[in-house]
Amino acid sequence: MDKFMEAALAEAKKGMETGGIPIGSVIVHDGEIIGRGHNQRVQKGSATLHGEMDALENAGRQPAAVYKNSVLYTTLSPCAMCTGAILLYGIPKVVIGENKTFMGEEELLKSRGVEVNVLQAEPCIALMEKFIQQSPQLWHEDIGCE
Amino acid sequence: MDKFMEAALAEAKKGMETGGIPIGSVIVHDGEIIGRGHNQRVQKGSATLHGEMDALENAGRQPAAVYKNSVLYTTLSPCAMCTGAILLYGIPKVVIGENKTFMGEEELLKSRGVEVNVLQAEPCIALMEKFIQQSPQLWHEDIGCE
Repeated sequence: MDKFMEAALAEAKKGMETGGIPIGSVIVHDGEIIGRGHNQRVQKGSATLHGEMDALENAGRQPAAVYKNSVLYTTLSPCAMCTGAILLYGIPKVVIGENKTFMGEEELLKSRGVEVNVLQAEPCIALMEKFIQQSPQLWHEDIGCE
Repeated sequence: MDKFMEAALAEAKKGMETGGIPIGSVIVHDGEIIGRGHNQRVQKGSATLHGEMDALENAGRQPAAVYKNSVLYTTLSPCAMCTGAILLYGIPKVVIGENKTFMGEEELLKSRGVEVNVLQAEPCIALMEKFIQQSPQLWHEDIGCE
């Protein structure tokens, strides 16, 4: 894993350690992390702050030119909501830790011209597998299934 | 307009009155509003709280069964991010105030089986036209174009 996926994974672990859902994300512009975050369903009672959304929110209001020259790193394949946010802001490239435990809307991203790179990284898979085994109900709530 | 679009429009006006972007939304379950909100880009410096997202956030954590039996009302055609949130949670019906000033991802919603009802309501159009004329740069930032 490169240093940016390591940073996203560190966010995911922070989520796990604080009793939440271990999915993390960072947004990188010109080689610098401009926003980082993790799923806040438990910690903030949030229905919208998935890891990618939390990173976008923490990056703050940015001009279109910044988004259009950024890469979003996320430990897990992005759901429909996070995919839609990527499309809204025209982020051209997404690096995904893994899609083994959850397959998001990668085909939609690709169909709109977004470059999608799946690392299938073992540490990302192991973290989600452990979480899903421990908290299946919470996980299903997060993806709108329970 | 029915009373729920009136409530979404009241949220949009609240957004305008507080210096923000006048787009409002309510989520209705079993004939009751369970969440309401308006765009918070200016007020909270938020890159993710569009009107629909703010309504979802204010509805709090809900079980899938609630979303799947809800209707989302929004004064403006939903962008890719808000469309993705609707798809994530499986909200089956969206009532849209207007799509004259902005055409969102209505085709994507319909392609996934979501019922889309566009009212083309003059008060919603007039509010957005006034705002876009007054603050074109802020508007373009909100839809990822500037």
